[in-house]
Amino acid sequence: MSAPYPAGEGELPGRIMSGEMAEQPAVLRRILDQGIPAIRAVAAEIAARRPRFVLLTARGTSDNAALYAKYLIEITLGLPCGLASKSPTTAYGAKPDLKDVLVVTVSQSGGSPDLVASAKAAREAGAVTLAVTNNPDSPLVAVSEYHIDVLAGPEKALPATKTYTASLLSLYLFVEGLRGGDGAAAAILPELAEAILARGDEVKALASRYRFAERMVITSRGYGYPTAKEAALKLMETSYIPALSYSGADLLHGPLAMVDNISPVIAVVTDGRGGEALQPVLDRLRGRGADLFVVGPKAQVAAASAGFVLPTAGVAEEVQPILEILPLQMLAYEVTIARGQDPDAPRALAKVTETH
Amino acid sequence: MSAPYPAGEGELPGRIMSGEMAEQPAVLRRILDQGIPAIRAVAAEIAARRPRFVLLTARGTSDNAALYAKYLIEITLGLPCGLASKSPTTAYGAKPDLKDVLVVTVSQSGGSPDLVASAKAAREAGAVTLAVTNNPDSPLVAVSEYHIDVLAGPEKALPATKTYTASLLSLYLFVEGLRGGDGAAAAILPELAEAILARGDEVKALASRYRFAERMVITSRGYGYPTAKEAALKLMETSYIPALSYSGADLLHGPLAMVDNISPVIAVVTDGRGGEALQPVLDRLRGRGADLFVVGPKAQVAAASAGFVLPTAGVAEEVQPILEILPLQMLAYEVTIARGQDPDAPRALAKVTETH
Repeated sequence: MSAPYPAGEGELPGRIMSGEMAEQPAVLRRILDQGIPAIRAVAAEIAARRPRFVLLTARGTSDNAALYAKYLIEITLGLPCGLASKSPTTAYGAKPDLKDVLVVTVSQSGGSPDLVASAKAAREAGAVTLAVTNNPDSPLVAVSEYHIDVLAGPEKALPATKTYTASLLSLYLFVEGLRGGDGAAAAILPELAEAILARGDEVKALASRYRFAERMVITSRGYGYPTAKEAALKLMETSYIPALSYSGADLLHGPLAMVDNISPVIAVVTDGRGGEALQPVLDRLRGRGADLFVVGPKAQVAAASAGFVLPTAGVAEEVQPILEILPLQMLAYEVTIARGQDPDAPRALAKVTETH
Repeated sequence: MSAPYPAGEGELPGRIMSGEMAEQPAVLRRILDQGIPAIRAVAAEIAARRPRFVLLTARGTSDNAALYAKYLIEITLGLPCGLASKSPTTAYGAKPDLKDVLVVTVSQSGGSPDLVASAKAAREAGAVTLAVTNNPDSPLVAVSEYHIDVLAGPEKALPATKTYTASLLSLYLFVEGLRGGDGAAAAILPELAEAILARGDEVKALASRYRFAERMVITSRGYGYPTAKEAALKLMETSYIPALSYSGADLLHGPLAMVDNISPVIAVVTDGRGGEALQPVLDRLRGRGADLFVVGPKAQVAAASAGFVLPTAGVAEEVQPILEILPLQMLAYEVTIARGQDPDAPRALAKVTETH
């Protein structure tokens, strides 16, 4: 049976989500072909302002993209960086001194009132403000000093997919611009993304494992941790399976008590230092007889109960997250279909969430 | 039937955990009676160094205490603040420039090698380093420039309880010291904590609601959000119920699809701006027919399916988290007992978790 992602047409359940998942290689190509000059220009201007500290603000899927940027900024730029809480500003009216601080707000729609309010407050408090959105005409862009368009095109599916990978790539190129790198590691991504998305049949077969799962634990470490969080969110939004994500180290600090052979574990194993740091956690999970599904390099998958092999040869660790979420988006989609639900019609969700 | 927390003796299951829960009023009193001068002295020295940013590092229960400190620092001090990721330093060898940065490491044992390594690296990178621990003889204290002892006494139970509330109070007093406040809002806490812990029978009756729960969602906003996270961790560590915690705003950005009338919701409603900001979320949950358990002021509990009324008259919002976790610790304990498990013997946990 052919996989649904390349199709994205007809009246099939999930056709909107699958159509947008299928667009991802083209979106990545568009950013590399058309987006780079604007991203570099913004990065050069911001680099000249010499920020000492970076705060990232976002919610939902964009919050996971922001977490990816946090790793890049700390590791490749050596700038201290935090994920901002919103309520200190929006609920408590906090007025922090943000001189020398770069505040990056990531939002697909650029429309959530609390993010607009916190970006506006940050700018008034002296921060350099950057909006990373899929909508250059949004209120968030209007209140921010700088702006990066992630060029994903209109996103209609409620579970965000192409705006996530587009945000990751845009943030990667932005951080590369800040540090004076060339971002060449990204060139290989569109082609590899295409190859992964063509493996729908493989994911469909793997999805049957989770048809009756009552819960799931997803873990990773380092660059793969945002992928674990985003995969958990995607699974919950579409299939409603409670999916708990933990960094491998945090998993050992408590929630491991919950993992046993009836609680499947998905591990996102990057090829690099993050994957190496996850090894003791994987050993511990195997020792407990956990059902371990690995998304990662071939040898890691071979040592697990099941998995999806990612191409890693020649793929720098810092860009692997842009690929490793793809099979997990596909898995969320397939598990949802297998459960007789429609990934395009999650209960209770609106596309633009108006939190205040 | 009398509640087990004041007893804490005999061979009952959970007697170690219940004994330490029962010690909390005395621990809070000890900090107020004996700990304040040392905390103020450390705060005065650090204030004189004029940090511009704060990074907090911790894991597990201490990470929730660190999150509470983040709210205090942002709201009452107006300093930008982030929760540090550990792997950039420990796995990737990142060397951020930490001049003007205060790095606070919170750890019950002060022994986790990755926290010791990251505190050491932070100090070498120019940060002002502060260890907040329950063990003044720990390696973490040895590598840090400053130190606050949370004075909780030896903690033997695997689920941390008294070190959590002791860390919250110590961090509150430290931040008060930094901003030149008197911390007087804390004086009322030991007495109120005692009154809450005496209500074990009430919690035992409420716990029967969750005996057969397959999962749980815990939400809050503002100062109550760390409580929601800590309650989820406590429930998972002891009862193994998958408990997902979200800020109210994040809940609306996705995971709400998972909440329906078979997924009970616990809301931590602070009396103040955090609770006000949570109202739209509570309305939305009630509109969806969610089973809503509220920990908070009387009127909030009256509008919910069930709840535990907290004393809030005369209790400043910023110290309410020190009380509101107590009924949730008790709930985790009682649900675990009701399920025929032993809160003192969680599967797979070691008291000092050695993550690297």
